[in-house]
Amino acid sequence: MGLLDYFRSSQPKGSANVAKERLQILVAHDRAARDRPSYLPKLQQEIIDVIRKYVDVDMNAVSVNYEQEDAHEVLELNIVLPEAAQQRFAP
Amino acid sequence: MGLLDYFRSSQPKGSANVAKERLQILVAHDRAARDRPSYLPKLQQEIIDVIRKYVDVDMNAVSVNYEQEDAHEVLELNIVLPEAAQQRFAP
Repeated sequence: MGLLDYFRSSQPKGSANVAKERLQILVAHDRAARDRPSYLPKLQQEIIDVIRKYVDVDMNAVSVNYEQEDAHEVLELNIVLPEAAQQRFAP
Repeated sequence: MGLLDYFRSSQPKGSANVAKERLQILVAHDRAARDRPSYLPKLQQEIIDVIRKYVDVDMNAVSVNYEQEDAHEVLELNIVLPEAAQQRFAP
């Protein structure tokens, strides 16, 4: 299954006719050294900060999911952008 | 299918016994306004810069895939981290 298919299938049903700006960010980490602390939680905030350079992000519209199993960890950020999102032109 | 399953199934075969540090980052964007320029290419470099605060990233070990179809765009970054990757402790 291709990536586009995966993301399309993960969209909420019934929203087909509503044009919403959405950003979904996934960070998957396969760790060789499990004894080190994970840096994904810190990375999460920094990635949101980067996105905020480009679009307005309401923190209430950000949902975070974090899964960990053995040496795999996946961080998922789902951001619904405001309909009248003002796109910023950062460097 | 859960996210962990998806990422596990997307791993290259035959590497089960080799513990490699890998980071995979996906950014999916559903755009309501297609007339605006995409900011994903710029976001890409900024996300790599953020990751570099935490681990050494060899730019030769970064592969980038970008897919676009209608109002959907997906940016994929695959980063193989060096085995002796020195984890940095950024703020």
